[in-house]
Amino acid sequence: MSLPRSVAAHRDAVVELLSGPAANTATEQFPLLEALGKVLAVDLHAPLSLPPFANSQMDGFAVNSADIPDDGAKLRVAAPVPAGAAPEPLKPGFAAPIMTGAMIPEGADAVVPIERALPSTFPNPEAEDVDVLLPATTPGTYVRHIGSDIGEGDLALPAGTFLGPAQLGLLAALGLTSAEVRKPMRVLLVTTGDEVLEPGQSLTPGKIYDSNGTLLEASMRQSGLDVVRTGISDDDPARLRAVLNRHVASEDGQHRVDLIVTTGGVSKGAYEVVRQAMAGQHVDFLPVAMQPGGPQGIGRFEGVPFLGFPGNPVSCLVSYEMFLRPALSQIHGVPAPRPVQRARLVEPLHSPEGKHQVRRGTVLPDGSVRMEGGAGSHLVHALARSNALVHIPSDVTELAEGSEVEVWML
Amino acid sequence: MSLPRSVAAHRDAVVELLSGPAANTATEQFPLLEALGKVLAVDLHAPLSLPPFANSQMDGFAVNSADIPDDGAKLRVAAPVPAGAAPEPLKPGFAAPIMTGAMIPEGADAVVPIERALPSTFPNPEAEDVDVLLPATTPGTYVRHIGSDIGEGDLALPAGTFLGPAQLGLLAALGLTSAEVRKPMRVLLVTTGDEVLEPGQSLTPGKIYDSNGTLLEASMRQSGLDVVRTGISDDDPARLRAVLNRHVASEDGQHRVDLIVTTGGVSKGAYEVVRQAMAGQHVDFLPVAMQPGGPQGIGRFEGVPFLGFPGNPVSCLVSYEMFLRPALSQIHGVPAPRPVQRARLVEPLHSPEGKHQVRRGTVLPDGSVRMEGGAGSHLVHALARSNALVHIPSDVTELAEGSEVEVWML
Repeated sequence: MSLPRSVAAHRDAVVELLSGPAANTATEQFPLLEALGKVLAVDLHAPLSLPPFANSQMDGFAVNSADIPDDGAKLRVAAPVPAGAAPEPLKPGFAAPIMTGAMIPEGADAVVPIERALPSTFPNPEAEDVDVLLPATTPGTYVRHIGSDIGEGDLALPAGTFLGPAQLGLLAALGLTSAEVRKPMRVLLVTTGDEVLEPGQSLTPGKIYDSNGTLLEASMRQSGLDVVRTGISDDDPARLRAVLNRHVASEDGQHRVDLIVTTGGVSKGAYEVVRQAMAGQHVDFLPVAMQPGGPQGIGRFEGVPFLGFPGNPVSCLVSYEMFLRPALSQIHGVPAPRPVQRARLVEPLHSPEGKHQVRRGTVLPDGSVRMEGGAGSHLVHALARSNALVHIPSDVTELAEGSEVEVWML
Repeated sequence: MSLPRSVAAHRDAVVELLSGPAANTATEQFPLLEALGKVLAVDLHAPLSLPPFANSQMDGFAVNSADIPDDGAKLRVAAPVPAGAAPEPLKPGFAAPIMTGAMIPEGADAVVPIERALPSTFPNPEAEDVDVLLPATTPGTYVRHIGSDIGEGDLALPAGTFLGPAQLGLLAALGLTSAEVRKPMRVLLVTTGDEVLEPGQSLTPGKIYDSNGTLLEASMRQSGLDVVRTGISDDDPARLRAVLNRHVASEDGQHRVDLIVTTGGVSKGAYEVVRQAMAGQHVDFLPVAMQPGGPQGIGRFEGVPFLGFPGNPVSCLVSYEMFLRPALSQIHGVPAPRPVQRARLVEPLHSPEGKHQVRRGTVLPDGSVRMEGGAGSHLVHALARSNALVHIPSDVTELAEGSEVEVWML
């Protein structure tokens, strides 16, 4: 048996595995709202300037600042400029009522806000020969200049940008209706075990319902992955190999999936179906110095990256959160890393020497953290009550009540 | 003009508006994975215990602890118990090879891990009359007892629980295939303005592309809302009223939407279409002591809750993040509140007195925050570069470089 690998070393190995030659570089064009949560595939340059024309920052009067001496001036009121209109040029001695966002007329160079005008209300647009008393202003005042947010041809968003509401809002402001995004990684997710039944079937003695499939598919969907499920594979290695082979090869020789993830069958028992199915493949089964989630498989099945998680649901979630999710964040920038906090233990803890223990807990509003359930990796109800993973480093065996620990918010 | 309302007071008003009699209490049944990110509508009790039967926590030998004296004993090896099997009762003087997760046979009360057995490997299952030397153990050792995670009939998840991967994993472990969730709130989103064009149309002088619709729909979708778009409404109040009326009433007298959100037309200019369209409705237009996003509309249109956001994209995003999103979090528990941090300014800032200023910035890896763009509410490119909202309270007008400010991570 090899020496346990550290959590950091195994995470690096997962990053290396997923950054390898089979990494997916395909892109897809999506309508803006369907691109939400995806990653821009290309540098995007602005097809137009923002703002596209000089416009008013205030409701007020567009003026030529040179028309108003230091002690103010009475100007003749021109036709109003509503937002959306292409205004007539402003004649000398005139002031045009202008709305926020409306185009600054040719000949004007500043806006005097309505509340500084006398009278401080807009005249009836039908009235003729109306004057307004305005204070002096300087060129550019309350004018949003063309291109002051971004100039035509400038880099709007670099490749690799995560597309959230603000980024999609920018693309819309630039007149774009779609975005070229990175094609999501496609994962084949296989849960294994003679003891595992699909939810909804009737439970017979010795059997349990598969929660790993739901738990991991939900986690992967949240991370933007495209998940292919095979159903549950029993403990026959030949059948498992057949299932995997059916999904890795396609007619044109391309891989149909970018990653295989299995659960269960990676330990040292007598019936370890994933270990057995991987015989002859470039796959290692090794202990990672972590609890739960110690036994891990990693390598390639017929050239396709492969990760073998252990079979207990808490071990699966911890494996996902400790290895696959951070690797995706590091390589693709998506999903965002889990927010990290420090929290005070409300109870003392002990942890096995030489293992990074990952407990589940609830971070309370006062910044303390309460453990949910014990260390057992089968405690899925306790997991479902938790809002955080609690980290106890491998060199720590005892922690007193009130000690500060690192927590990752789920 | 009324005195500006504080940000907190306006947020409370939004909470009150959305908690009112028209609040949506409908529920829907969804398959587990489609319930991801939704909120459980009912208390959910466990239909079975977890674990459903006593099972082994280790690969090892199931024994009756009374068979092994303090100095150990040689026991006869019984037929192995794989996971998923319903084992024969254990006969006195026998030890059954058992795998992690397999059912503890009747007559056994403890498991001795394989590494403490001599020999420390499982015998060939075909071999007969094999003995194994095992150390003493105490009842219950390495046994996961029935119901030790949750007992049949116990509360598994209370109504109002956010359904993430762990919660859905629990439901699957309980054998459930679907969940009853709260029906998402349906929002009618209307962007207004004569100057606004749909992205993809050709831009004419004085016009800009609508980014508010995309920005807000994306934000609302992320918060789990169901968004109905009407396209852009021009500055004719009668036409806007007709659009709203078409969406609020249905044949059976029920509201077809739970909330109306408009953008633009709430300020004090000469052409404020939303203000004009709301004449005769129970709607207030008022200044909130916030920059950007100061002018806000709030009330009911034909009984349906209504929020009128200002027209600039940054104002829209800030209005959403400061009022609607926190109100949804408070009322429904979804979405999760924005993570709040403290960050050091890399530059001095000034802010208008009496207004809570919300700037956009990038929180850097060293915990400092750099402003993106100025205070202008039209700077959507600067917004798209930001990862945080930076808060400058209303009683602060100057902040030195290095000052700590509150930031909300986007």
